[in-house]
Amino acid sequence: MATNVSDLDTPALLVDLDRLEANLDRAAAYAKASGLRLRPHTKTHKSPLVASMQVARGAVGLTVAKVGEAQVMAGEGVPDLLVAYPVWGDVKWARLARIARAVPVTVALDSPDVAEGLAVHARRAGIVIRVLVEADLGMRRCGLPPGPALVDLARHVEALDGLRAQGIMFYPGHINPASSGGPGQLGKLRSDLERVLSDFGASGLCAEIVSGGSTPTLYHSHTIDGLTEIRPGTYVFNDRSQVAMEACKWEHCALSVVATVVSVSERGWFVVDAGSKTLSSDLQRPDQDGCFGHVVDVPGARLHMMNEEHGMVDMSGRMDLAPRIGERVHIIPNHVCATVNMHDVVHGVRGGTVEVSWKVAGRGRVQ
Amino acid sequence: MATNVSDLDTPALLVDLDRLEANLDRAAAYAKASGLRLRPHTKTHKSPLVASMQVARGAVGLTVAKVGEAQVMAGEGVPDLLVAYPVWGDVKWARLARIARAVPVTVALDSPDVAEGLAVHARRAGIVIRVLVEADLGMRRCGLPPGPALVDLARHVEALDGLRAQGIMFYPGHINPASSGGPGQLGKLRSDLERVLSDFGASGLCAEIVSGGSTPTLYHSHTIDGLTEIRPGTYVFNDRSQVAMEACKWEHCALSVVATVVSVSERGWFVVDAGSKTLSSDLQRPDQDGCFGHVVDVPGARLHMMNEEHGMVDMSGRMDLAPRIGERVHIIPNHVCATVNMHDVVHGVRGGTVEVSWKVAGRGRVQ
Repeated sequence: MATNVSDLDTPALLVDLDRLEANLDRAAAYAKASGLRLRPHTKTHKSPLVASMQVARGAVGLTVAKVGEAQVMAGEGVPDLLVAYPVWGDVKWARLARIARAVPVTVALDSPDVAEGLAVHARRAGIVIRVLVEADLGMRRCGLPPGPALVDLARHVEALDGLRAQGIMFYPGHINPASSGGPGQLGKLRSDLERVLSDFGASGLCAEIVSGGSTPTLYHSHTIDGLTEIRPGTYVFNDRSQVAMEACKWEHCALSVVATVVSVSERGWFVVDAGSKTLSSDLQRPDQDGCFGHVVDVPGARLHMMNEEHGMVDMSGRMDLAPRIGERVHIIPNHVCATVNMHDVVHGVRGGTVEVSWKVAGRGRVQ
Repeated sequence: MATNVSDLDTPALLVDLDRLEANLDRAAAYAKASGLRLRPHTKTHKSPLVASMQVARGAVGLTVAKVGEAQVMAGEGVPDLLVAYPVWGDVKWARLARIARAVPVTVALDSPDVAEGLAVHARRAGIVIRVLVEADLGMRRCGLPPGPALVDLARHVEALDGLRAQGIMFYPGHINPASSGGPGQLGKLRSDLERVLSDFGASGLCAEIVSGGSTPTLYHSHTIDGLTEIRPGTYVFNDRSQVAMEACKWEHCALSVVATVVSVSERGWFVVDAGSKTLSSDLQRPDQDGCFGHVVDVPGARLHMMNEEHGMVDMSGRMDLAPRIGERVHIIPNHVCATVNMHDVVHGVRGGTVEVSWKVAGRGRVQ
């Protein structure tokens, strides 16, 4: 029998299935129209069910950050898995080589150390692991900056038996196209990538795959010459940060936390049963108000303080608009990937009915 | 066969069992010497195993925040469970009444609405649920401030069949005794509590239990007249925030995240395989440097930036001191309760050997 959404206990994660499907369709159509391969990052949903919806819409493969996530995602019908992370150590290399027997695996790396370890395990397992070398085009995280060291690394990978160099990966997570510096950052990215591609061309190195893309830059991808593939993750659900970065509108936010008002203070606030262990303490990006989410149902409400199980919502003097104890509110989180990672189950809702509930199978797979 | 700690894959949570036991012993001895009942909050460890170590050292009961945590903790030998949270709704009240058949349950609440709901379910189950009314002594979260409304609530609870009013709960989570305002905040707390107790006395209301206590105020508890019980949680493991608040020293920090260096940049930083999905993004309290943890092994290292699976450690120009790819580092988190909540397993270590691994059984029990 179908469960009414009002019968779910709180706090709980709700996904508006119409919005989810629209988000998936929009990105898939954009990628197709732009001639870009879509290899979505599954870190946002961590669910083989949502991954299968992405594959059904033409995703050429899936992206993960951890070997444990690759194990969860390596199901039937998955064309390809990219581990966008410099996997280290015999335990993880051996696990990855086992996965690569069933599903083609690509690893992004930025050091000869990781390449050599992977190559040993690939040869031992009698398989080939594909490799993208990671370029740092401004993120200052992993990756080598454009220049000779990056070329040397790619050459090193091409020389290693057990690996197949396929090109370049970068992550433009530092770029917010809606900020005043955004157009300049995008311009810098284009010229940096041009330099890398020119270096690779001059050295005869493979750049069959040039993989970039984040949700904020998603719909700018066609303006980046040389890009062949994008890896957005957050676009499936979106969140308050994506709205702030103008990557989407509120009506594209598919996931909300339903919470119950458990305490109301005449002194100007109410408390909901969703705190940092339900929402995560990630701030909005870029942080504009120090709040921890957008309370959809209550005009003027500011979720300005949290403890682990308490969310404190300031009403700025308008207690006449505050809900009463026992009423439910819906909160769009600042960073939906971090929120989903707090939970075991997500409920997919359409027209007030829970149509499907799925396990966050990749939650906690930090290894 | 015993596992060597170096055989564990990363990232992983390690607990130094000697330190844990010393932390438990110290708090138990203090409570005993001060004539205070210790009812530790289990939100930090979320583990029946650690709870049993607390009970073995004289804890009079356990504190939880959620009904789901109460279910996890309601094991054999647990003398009493305090749900320090205004539990709302028929589903949760019914679950709680079932638990209360096996273990005495106390609920802290701040509204007649919650009291009445609980009373209905207690009567239906033929049991009695004990109640503490929550006073707000400066935290500005749940609770009623000292005054007539608080007295009225306690009187209302005393009149309800199915409930037994036992006294007062407050949470002094706003007080950092080591800050410049700390002594003043403690003084204000003492006078506010005195007023509440005088009101209760004048009205003939039960104040058999007066429950306060947090880890930062733990060893100040004997200076608060009228207090009968303390509920510290974090003291079992401690963390970087507790060190910053002078509630402990580094050598009292029992839990660390072991992480592997996966990328090193000549430009001045290295990257570990522990980001916000391993450490949580909670900041130090009070925030002094915007860092996300203390890297124990590397002098001068600043964990200044995180993404979900990446921790970026700035070396401030001292790359000669940076570890190499594949080396391991240990990180003491900002807020250990939030960190533990990210993980399924914790490893108890003594002398380089994993002596016991336990499940974080209460993780994710947000309902």
